[in-house]
Amino acid sequence: MATKTAIQAVKGTRDFYPEAMAFRNWLYGKIRAISERFGYQEYEAPILERLELYAAKSGEELVKEQSFVLKDRGGDELALRPELTPSLARMIAQRQASLVLPVRWYSFGPFWRYERPQRGRTREFFQWNIDLLGSDSPTADGEIVSIGAEFLRSVGLTPDEVVIRLNSRRLMEQKLAEIGIGAEQRLEVFHLIDRRDRMPPDKWQAWALEMGLSAGQLDALTALLGDSELWRESEELQQVFATAEALGVADYLTYDASIVRGLDYYTGPVFEAYDRGRTLRAIFGGGRYDNLVADVGGDRIPGVGFAMGDVIIELLLERVGKRPKLPTTPSRALVTLFSADLYGQTLALAASLRRAGINVEQYLEPERLSKQVRYADRKGIPWVVILGPDEVAAGRVVLKELASGEQRSCTPAEAIELLKAGQVEHASSPV
Amino acid sequence: MATKTAIQAVKGTRDFYPEAMAFRNWLYGKIRAISERFGYQEYEAPILERLELYAAKSGEELVKEQSFVLKDRGGDELALRPELTPSLARMIAQRQASLVLPVRWYSFGPFWRYERPQRGRTREFFQWNIDLLGSDSPTADGEIVSIGAEFLRSVGLTPDEVVIRLNSRRLMEQKLAEIGIGAEQRLEVFHLIDRRDRMPPDKWQAWALEMGLSAGQLDALTALLGDSELWRESEELQQVFATAEALGVADYLTYDASIVRGLDYYTGPVFEAYDRGRTLRAIFGGGRYDNLVADVGGDRIPGVGFAMGDVIIELLLERVGKRPKLPTTPSRALVTLFSADLYGQTLALAASLRRAGINVEQYLEPERLSKQVRYADRKGIPWVVILGPDEVAAGRVVLKELASGEQRSCTPAEAIELLKAGQVEHASSPV
Repeated sequence: MATKTAIQAVKGTRDFYPEAMAFRNWLYGKIRAISERFGYQEYEAPILERLELYAAKSGEELVKEQSFVLKDRGGDELALRPELTPSLARMIAQRQASLVLPVRWYSFGPFWRYERPQRGRTREFFQWNIDLLGSDSPTADGEIVSIGAEFLRSVGLTPDEVVIRLNSRRLMEQKLAEIGIGAEQRLEVFHLIDRRDRMPPDKWQAWALEMGLSAGQLDALTALLGDSELWRESEELQQVFATAEALGVADYLTYDASIVRGLDYYTGPVFEAYDRGRTLRAIFGGGRYDNLVADVGGDRIPGVGFAMGDVIIELLLERVGKRPKLPTTPSRALVTLFSADLYGQTLALAASLRRAGINVEQYLEPERLSKQVRYADRKGIPWVVILGPDEVAAGRVVLKELASGEQRSCTPAEAIELLKAGQVEHASSPV
Repeated sequence: MATKTAIQAVKGTRDFYPEAMAFRNWLYGKIRAISERFGYQEYEAPILERLELYAAKSGEELVKEQSFVLKDRGGDELALRPELTPSLARMIAQRQASLVLPVRWYSFGPFWRYERPQRGRTREFFQWNIDLLGSDSPTADGEIVSIGAEFLRSVGLTPDEVVIRLNSRRLMEQKLAEIGIGAEQRLEVFHLIDRRDRMPPDKWQAWALEMGLSAGQLDALTALLGDSELWRESEELQQVFATAEALGVADYLTYDASIVRGLDYYTGPVFEAYDRGRTLRAIFGGGRYDNLVADVGGDRIPGVGFAMGDVIIELLLERVGKRPKLPTTPSRALVTLFSADLYGQTLALAASLRRAGINVEQYLEPERLSKQVRYADRKGIPWVVILGPDEVAAGRVVLKELASGEQRSCTPAEAIELLKAGQVEHASSPV
């Protein structure tokens, strides 16, 4: 720790030291692999957007209570994006004349919400977004939900550990209407339902009565939320389940009438993934939003998608012992520096190893060899390369493997072969 | 274009549609490959930092004139990071007791500067940062400069097209002292030198006289800035050039006494890369900053590094005809939907192709086959898979290659083999 007064990081942000970054990259890799397996193209929206983009439809809590807002020098109110879907809708609306629909897009990037920092919740977080726009078919919803399930499978989570809870706002609207809750109260009641698990039951009931529900309506609503057979009344949900079945992931899905999601723009199927014991917040959540593109100025282009933050999934993987151990250094070998007069030859050797595709780090000072080897060991670099005057004279190098302590003299070509054989690309190039 | 009034993107931000994202990913891939070839670990700092972090040492222009600033709800002033080095220094200071020095780190992420948007300049941009901390050796500077050169080579730019211009602030301080410019005026004169190419000569001279330089000093300074042999007086610069020579990239480097960089924290060698004709702003720039970690509250840990934005390099590659043509869809095949009654079998076939590692997209509606094929063609998907009732009965599928128009009937296993053979991972997973 610094002894002087150090400037602190902003509350709710994270420093990604290499070990944390390695996890983020691993997660991003899984996300890319699954998204692209289903043919989704990667895209990205700006991180700054006009506040009005969210004001349109995201819902009051997210916009007013949770956004990081700043003023442009022109006086416009901007927000650090709290979610991606409105930006996506804006981008689709902008190119609606030229895009070939449906569009399948995914993205992984940073977001901000002004929340109380706590375990499993940060103010600056990363989120995977994946969306399919331009199709009304429930098969599209089924595909999106199945991508979520395949992702869970790809990180090693089984249906015994996680579950995707599915419902439909369309179905719920119909059921709410049946108990006398009309269109004008619908959003408010969806918020009520969405918050049930995050409030003490008595407070929740008081809130329900406050917003004008009768005791009878409250009873009916409570019964509704526990009805696990409701989905049979929805042809749409039947098709979503059938799609997941055909895609081989039905065991990750269940029906849950209490899932309605908090954002205002959802219009059809909605879903959230949880750990089985529901000890954590949702792993991901999403649903169908058929009016959002029109809401931001475009034509009516229906969409369905979900978002997953990087915090809960990491917590869960840790908890179930499935967070991978990842290498943090890309270096395959440390090229040591025997003496100052060998700088030129040593750097040239390192360059030739690199040109052969091997990741090597150069020790910069002609210090004691034992100190240099200890440096490699502490950094987790598996091999050291030694070039002394004898090696230079003989046109050879010495290779030492730290794990075994084994040491051998070989030609540079043999060294390349040996080092290359075991190199795992820590972070391979995306093309 | 939308016919209704659409919500606009924020000025100076970019929407990364898939084709733009493919370039960003290609660039990131090159950056990763070169950084890791030299053993650098990937890290990332928060995007929001306290304003005071920059106030410390970045220089007035960057902090007061160019930062996007917002107030925390606690009243603290925060900035959208305009650069990464201060965050890096903060992170190093925070862990100085446990980090094994030297540290070699790189990063690629978004930054913001409030500048007038124009070609080659956006307000939201991406930047590669690469730094080596914990070494005073000029070999470290030489390594960093050589990484820049290797990057330029890796994207296909030759020494005929680009050049890295190198100088040393230490050397310039000494030369400025010799013409009577003392420590108290040094930073101001560095700013003057840094802006020479961006101002009309008469205005630049007027500014110099305004800050108190005599006509004689101005003449001496002008002569100094054109002296291409100055580097011979600097042992440090000689070592940097020798390192680049040993690493095989000396042909990318030249000495330029007019390079001093605009940021206040540089203390030693500094450099900037340009296109040969210098028709564009710098491709990248950096240098040695030996006091920054101490300035943000840590011990004295010297550092050297550079930053490269994503905008100028793309412009330059376009200009010289070396911007790569990249695939924008990861899909290897489109699985068509022959008829509604084959939904189940078709989705299951797509799932089996995906499990075999093939990226496939599913057509969602049982529309005319010609329409489905046309969709694949417009999206750039090379193959279509057809599963009609005859194929289901025979346990076969039909594969059609769009480029050749060739069509063949085969078993699912043969289809997998055929599709897999030509699949180029569009964006491979980083582990």
